Amino acid sequence: MPAPSDTPNSTDSETNAESPAEETAAADGFTVTPYAVDGEIDYEKLLERFGADPLTDEQIARFPDHPLLRRRTFYAGRDVDDYLEAAAAGDPHAIVTGRGPSGPMHLGHVLPLYLAKRFQRETGATVYIPLSDDEKFLAKDQSFDSIGEHTRENLRDILAVGFDPDRTRIVVDTADADVIYPIAVRLAKHLTPATVEAVYGEQDTVGLQFYPAVQATHLLLPQLVGGRQPTLVPIAVDQDPHVRVCRDVAAKEALPVDKPGALLGRFLPSLEGPGKMSSSGDAPSIELTDDPETVAETIRTHAYTGGRATLADHREKGGDPTVDVPFQYLRFFFEPDDERLERIAADYRSGDLLSGELKELAIDRITEFLADHQRRRAELGSLESELEPYRLTEGERRRALERAGVPMGLEG
Amino acid sequence: MPAPSDTPNSTDSETNAESPAEETAAADGFTVTPYAVDGEIDYEKLLERFGADPLTDEQIARFPDHPLLRRRTFYAGRDVDDYLEAAAAGDPHAIVTGRGPSGPMHLGHVLPLYLAKRFQRETGATVYIPLSDDEKFLAKDQSFDSIGEHTRENLRDILAVGFDPDRTRIVVDTADADVIYPIAVRLAKHLTPATVEAVYGEQDTVGLQFYPAVQATHLLLPQLVGGRQPTLVPIAVDQDPHVRVCRDVAAKEALPVDKPGALLGRFLPSLEGPGKMSSSGDAPSIELTDDPETVAETIRTHAYTGGRATLADHREKGGDPTVDVPFQYLRFFFEPDDERLERIAADYRSGDLLSGELKELAIDRITEFLADHQRRRAELGSLESELEPYRLTEGERRRALERAGVPMGLEG
Repeated sequence: MPAPSDTPNSTDSETNAESPAEETAAADGFTVTPYAVDGEIDYEKLLERFGADPLTDEQIARFPDHPLLRRRTFYAGRDVDDYLEAAAAGDPHAIVTGRGPSGPMHLGHVLPLYLAKRFQRETGATVYIPLSDDEKFLAKDQSFDSIGEHTRENLRDILAVGFDPDRTRIVVDTADADVIYPIAVRLAKHLTPATVEAVYGEQDTVGLQFYPAVQATHLLLPQLVGGRQPTLVPIAVDQDPHVRVCRDVAAKEALPVDKPGALLGRFLPSLEGPGKMSSSGDAPSIELTDDPETVAETIRTHAYTGGRATLADHREKGGDPTVDVPFQYLRFFFEPDDERLERIAADYRSGDLLSGELKELAIDRITEFLADHQRRRAELGSLESELEPYRLTEGERRRALERAGVPMGLEG
Repeated sequence: MPAPSDTPNSTDSETNAESPAEETAAADGFTVTPYAVDGEIDYEKLLERFGADPLTDEQIARFPDHPLLRRRTFYAGRDVDDYLEAAAAGDPHAIVTGRGPSGPMHLGHVLPLYLAKRFQRETGATVYIPLSDDEKFLAKDQSFDSIGEHTRENLRDILAVGFDPDRTRIVVDTADADVIYPIAVRLAKHLTPATVEAVYGEQDTVGLQFYPAVQATHLLLPQLVGGRQPTLVPIAVDQDPHVRVCRDVAAKEALPVDKPGALLGRFLPSLEGPGKMSSSGDAPSIELTDDPETVAETIRTHAYTGGRATLADHREKGGDPTVDVPFQYLRFFFEPDDERLERIAADYRSGDLLSGELKELAIDRITEFLADHQRRRAELGSLESELEPYRLTEGERRRALERAGVPMGLEG
């Protein structure tokens, strides 16, 4: 799951784009880039490295109430105040939350989408959801056919979230290349290989060298389509380089946009314990299309717990909720009630609640959540017709190209 | 003018894509890359360097008769026999001849287009004309507005050539990004930074790093749209790296295409003497929209001649047609009759024909040619309506993406 993470200082250190080369090195014993997460992650150190700001209590109180924020899974950001002010004033404001369609979506992938939906419902945020099928084709050992198949399945999951089509736009890089590519070229004019290499590390193909310009396009799209407005990008900390590159590019180019802000999150732990939940690694994960039996079986078999080795030991010494993955699932998303969550934690610590019982609590909540999601997914008609109201209109494409200063067609 | 040039050997040495790094160095005292031409060019050495084949008399006889071939301005190639066989058999065969719209088109730019039109008339060649507005935006210090304006003006010149719309497709990278970009991504998957750097030299932006994948797309487009067929790319020798990169890429990817062939040409000399005629340098040039007075004035004032310093000296010793630019114009294109051309050369060598008289001969032919071109240009209606029959149809776009193995939209 992309969940947020990071800590900052308020100087825009990302404008020194040549400097963050050391990020790619495992200077503090851990490595975080968009293509690799290794080692034990120190989320505070990451904020220092990346130069982002921890969220204050006051900022969190101004966001729509959501466990992902209240409990600091999203714990840092950039330019968050601008977004909050626009949201409070009823002025235009946008969220960009993307998806790399290289496989089935699992639980972690969809939680930021539900967060975005909450923001949309409560303050009217426009939500942009770019699908980077180009990047996934380039980065993975998969054919475009395979990526295309995942794209279509992922789109069904995204549609099942239930966004407001009047305030949501879904773009697919290859299918919306008419607007994405020309703007990416515009942004690529001053994006140097050195910047890309410093932030992303060395790339194997010229496709991946170019891709940061496409990603920057995603993050500026709400403003290029809908005019200058605060844009917040809720992402896991490993995707922060995309935001920083985009902020650099936006600052260098004379475009009618503000730099996009970020809401930075910690990783949802892997079922098997701390670290990033990944569908590409070998770790088991919960897919959005799993049936209740599979979910229960997966959690019962694979979920890492904070319980003791024996029942007697657990009853006597109690468990550790801070490392218990079922508990962390409840804390991140599935138990919104703070008192109930605290009671569960207390019962677990005291030994009254067993690991197996805690697992069943999480299984109940997750299967309930997935049942709703799967019901909405099953009710969808053909992808083409369901997607249509979420696609950029001709007028929106034209406005975006116009604001980006890209040649406006071949009339004349 | 892109006129062809090069000499080869028949082993496909371009498949060793990592090797041609030395091309970018001025190993033999001259430098030829797509972005720089310096020094006195040795066209035979270039063929050795690039690994292409000189055209044989027999090959030239099989092409439609044209001074650009008969007189060896186009003097070398790759896979020329495949093209000639298809043309003779009435099987599908294609020409790709592009334009980088960074300024007004001058005389040199349009001659290969007239050559392509001749091929189209005589053997039914399909002609693809890609306009790389993306590359020009990235490579030049110009806004996209300016590049867009040049693109529209260049398109009018291309349309004025009078291609058969049933057998001609014109694509503009930004305006046809829906088909160009996804295919370029497909080709970029195995295009390494090392290959691009070896062939093109180091690039300043990630946009130019990616561009060779776009260029490769141009060269494969006839086959992706219309099925496997011999494709010939008539280009000046400085553009040969584009062809070689495309041939590499086509060989690496499992695509239903043959490697595109090339017809390689020498540069049309600058008005001021040997070297490449360039509208971006300071050298004066003849633009396609110049009126007869301007053409005459430009040639009278700036054309480098092979005449002697004084009239008496010229009458006595004669001039040198091999370096005389007005004579070279006649030889390349404007005096198709070999006997007349030889008589002019003989008269010049003997001193009977003066430099000023030779200039007037060239002025007459060029203004006559431009008058026809300008008349057809003036008769064009709106660009949009004139261009429409030359644009890729929806079915052609779909077939090209399908053959390239790119995700086919969002149905399902």
